[in-house]
Amino acid sequence: MKEENTNKKGVKVIPLGGLEQIGMNITAFEYEDSIIVVDCGLSFPEDEMLGIDLVIPDVTYLKENISKVKGFVITHGHEDHIGSLPYVLKEVNVPIYATKLTIGIIENKLKEHNLLKSTKRKVIKYGQSINLGCFRIEFIRTNHSIADAASLAIFTPAGIIVHTGDFKVDYTPVFGSTIDLPRFAELGKKGVLALLCESTNVERPGYTMSERTVGKTFDNIFAENNKNRIIVATFASNVDRIQQIVNSAEKYGRKVVVEGRSMVNIIATATELGYITMPNNIMIDIEQMKSYPDEKIVLITTGSQGEVMAALPRMAASIHKKVSIKPGDTVIFSSTPIPGNEKSVFKVINELSMKGAKVIFQDTHVSGHACQEEIKLIYALTKPKYSIPIHGEYRHLIKHKELAQNMGIPKDNIFVISSGDVLELSEEHAGVIGKVPAQGIFVDGLGVGDVGNIVLRDRQHLSENGLLIVVVTLEKYTNQVLSGPDIVSRGFVYVRESENLMDEARNVVSDALEKCLSKNTTDWGKMKNEIKDSLSDYLWKKTKRNPMILPIIMEVN
Amino acid sequence: MKEENTNKKGVKVIPLGGLEQIGMNITAFEYEDSIIVVDCGLSFPEDEMLGIDLVIPDVTYLKENISKVKGFVITHGHEDHIGSLPYVLKEVNVPIYATKLTIGIIENKLKEHNLLKSTKRKVIKYGQSINLGCFRIEFIRTNHSIADAASLAIFTPAGIIVHTGDFKVDYTPVFGSTIDLPRFAELGKKGVLALLCESTNVERPGYTMSERTVGKTFDNIFAENNKNRIIVATFASNVDRIQQIVNSAEKYGRKVVVEGRSMVNIIATATELGYITMPNNIMIDIEQMKSYPDEKIVLITTGSQGEVMAALPRMAASIHKKVSIKPGDTVIFSSTPIPGNEKSVFKVINELSMKGAKVIFQDTHVSGHACQEEIKLIYALTKPKYSIPIHGEYRHLIKHKELAQNMGIPKDNIFVISSGDVLELSEEHAGVIGKVPAQGIFVDGLGVGDVGNIVLRDRQHLSENGLLIVVVTLEKYTNQVLSGPDIVSRGFVYVRESENLMDEARNVVSDALEKCLSKNTTDWGKMKNEIKDSLSDYLWKKTKRNPMILPIIMEVN
Repeated sequence: MKEENTNKKGVKVIPLGGLEQIGMNITAFEYEDSIIVVDCGLSFPEDEMLGIDLVIPDVTYLKENISKVKGFVITHGHEDHIGSLPYVLKEVNVPIYATKLTIGIIENKLKEHNLLKSTKRKVIKYGQSINLGCFRIEFIRTNHSIADAASLAIFTPAGIIVHTGDFKVDYTPVFGSTIDLPRFAELGKKGVLALLCESTNVERPGYTMSERTVGKTFDNIFAENNKNRIIVATFASNVDRIQQIVNSAEKYGRKVVVEGRSMVNIIATATELGYITMPNNIMIDIEQMKSYPDEKIVLITTGSQGEVMAALPRMAASIHKKVSIKPGDTVIFSSTPIPGNEKSVFKVINELSMKGAKVIFQDTHVSGHACQEEIKLIYALTKPKYSIPIHGEYRHLIKHKELAQNMGIPKDNIFVISSGDVLELSEEHAGVIGKVPAQGIFVDGLGVGDVGNIVLRDRQHLSENGLLIVVVTLEKYTNQVLSGPDIVSRGFVYVRESENLMDEARNVVSDALEKCLSKNTTDWGKMKNEIKDSLSDYLWKKTKRNPMILPIIMEVN
Repeated sequence: MKEENTNKKGVKVIPLGGLEQIGMNITAFEYEDSIIVVDCGLSFPEDEMLGIDLVIPDVTYLKENISKVKGFVITHGHEDHIGSLPYVLKEVNVPIYATKLTIGIIENKLKEHNLLKSTKRKVIKYGQSINLGCFRIEFIRTNHSIADAASLAIFTPAGIIVHTGDFKVDYTPVFGSTIDLPRFAELGKKGVLALLCESTNVERPGYTMSERTVGKTFDNIFAENNKNRIIVATFASNVDRIQQIVNSAEKYGRKVVVEGRSMVNIIATATELGYITMPNNIMIDIEQMKSYPDEKIVLITTGSQGEVMAALPRMAASIHKKVSIKPGDTVIFSSTPIPGNEKSVFKVINELSMKGAKVIFQDTHVSGHACQEEIKLIYALTKPKYSIPIHGEYRHLIKHKELAQNMGIPKDNIFVISSGDVLELSEEHAGVIGKVPAQGIFVDGLGVGDVGNIVLRDRQHLSENGLLIVVVTLEKYTNQVLSGPDIVSRGFVYVRESENLMDEARNVVSDALEKCLSKNTTDWGKMKNEIKDSLSDYLWKKTKRNPMILPIIMEVN
């Protein structure tokens, strides 16, 4: 009996992030004494995560099972798939496997964090397989908005699992070939136990356009704006996009200038590794730009999402040291605002327009993610027994479930799960059998995990109505007021215009204090609460605001 | 000579808001001793205006010229055109002129602010004119996403000015008739001095769809979801949209329930004034809902922008007292997220989906604003001498300028101006001749204008890294430390996990204090700066964070 059960053991799929959220993609696959981890991404903070720089996954489960963990298998070089590696490697130091460009981008990151020496890594080619514990993982060519993206076929003792990574179907890619659809079909013939397919564009009908279409638009814009400097902002990691800008530049006789740290780094890596072909002498240094007339220059830059510290927004705000926007400049946003960034992008467009620049932000971007018909194609080829929608908010996952049902997967074989769920799969059974920690961990400056919900709640409170600090010095034993109560406020009202309010507030505090002291209270907690409550009531009545109130009692012998 | 100049005097156009921003539309028109004010809107705070509820216009110029101000002429009942009236009327108490529904909505607002008695108001019909000082103002029928919207023809001694208000061209409106295009043509024939035309959709090619198309989509959705409760979230003020939901409800035998304060108010007003036709007994109270099966109910609600305090988001978050979302509910977002609201809307969609609701958010909304072809039509009919693009961020205004040029207006006759600019126009000359105050004023709770940039900067600082308060009690004259230094922090780090850091911070402060005291400093400002700087340096080194530091010195005799 027991043996039979063991034989029928399933493989565990444990997403530690990426479900019910965009970003922070990381999924562990476990079978007996082997664990492999696919991707190790970060996510950017939500609006309410005030002051937080990044969010990284909780890898407690990996640390507790460190002896089983065989390696990280990375699908491609985007931040939401590799960004947490420098943090996680400090605790889970296992080898990294990925394609050439992906390893190149990861190495840049490791260098910055001084982790290059201590981290093992191996370049894997499309079609090649690696054995990690009881798993064999095959890298499958796919298309995405970064070159060298891979889907994975994970051969487990319980069956074959296909993980798409981020993908689209591009029949006319700028670099390399079309996604290896025949291989997906072969795997389908062999029998796929489960498909983990991304969901980013699952709400969009139809097909995503080929990256190559953007190149045509660039050509048209370069042809029409042949008297002006052209500035193109795009995602640093979109190597194919950059290639197409370079191609247009060559065609129309412009020199290429690159600005923005991540852009400079990725172009250097991609060119060195052969993913961008740079015509001889086309690149010039930003310092040389003034030696050329405007119509001979194209500037490729970061900041297409309106990020305040990036190059283009700094140019727009006139705080960039080397580039000033001038009338006649043609600025192309080769990007689409990520939800939440719309207002920042529009702000930059307004500023650029005010400086006389012509701004183009339509038809110069295509998505890197599969729309409905492409996702259906992968289902049609792989014919999985189980479907696990990944990479998406709940609304995406549930839409993906609908699509999978339409593709013939029985409802009970589709698992819309949450990060932290332990899903066990075998030919015989499937279901969530447990839960592991999978809350995101906040990174603020150098601190990892030292800012939690209480700190964030305080920041929220402070941000809305500011604070009042009430300080009083009391004599020990006698409880005589030696100094104060003084009130200091920040972020509450413009004090000079609210002198009456602050004077009255001081009276309210004095009264509360006197009341407490007259009762000979020695319970300072109580006293602080009394001060807080009476001041809070008074301020709400007068201003309908609710600042943080911090009473501090100093004791003197 | 002097007389001739006087005769050739121009009319002044003074936008006090609405230019280089979306919202807060208000424009003064001045000629000699007469001023009229078109609209009096508010805007909602930008992301960086932490804790601010509303932004209202600065009407200093109107107050300083109060004897000239003849009245407010309001184009329609949206918040960005009427929302500041309750605040502004307290300082500029002049009569209000508008169409019937607009006056009805304004009256609701005045009631809430106890201003009904003290405010004169008059209902004006389409085609009717009023004389205010030297101005004659004619109300022209237009189409918009609220009924009873008007464009204005302002007859001034310097010429005719056409102000479109917010508009679209709807040949098949749900209520009333098509925008009075013949009247625009007549005015064009007479000769229009200047056109102030709105710019909201000027970036969009083509035409805006008719409101009626949404009705057909509702019918389809009602037909397909005939076993479930239907919930529709939309803008409370979109009376025609509500009419169409009611029509579908009648057609498919559903009762109508209305939830959300503003929705209840506007539907009551619009029904009473005849702008919504309610079939007998179709409306039921929310309390009665449980007496009907799900497929017999449609719930119309607020919250389509994901506003946390509105009805639908509260239902989605399970904190609505009367409505619980259940599996099978069909929720329609009959709206498009206003830029900046995308993430809030998606959050609500995720929450609704998790509760098993089916969410529909595509094809159930059309804009209320004119696209490029409609704007061109108005130019073609009115043939203005001068063009003044209004209602838009700079990117819209500059795009509008391009469109006006394409319509044959000479470049120098198009004025892309800023709020506060005083633009003088006559047949002979035109140009900006001055500037008046036009910064938005922040409303926070009951406070109007008591929160300024310094307060906001403090809130920003507090929100990012929290604060540390350093308190020390010194003996007067001897400067002996009687108590402290103590450090209290909020929103900085989770203190229990950072005890070492806080202990060391206290040492840093003690050292700084000792150094100051050993020099017999009595300059407390200097002492505070010394504490601040040394603590700030220490914390940056240790955490790469920059919290607000507030040193407080208490003095005891």
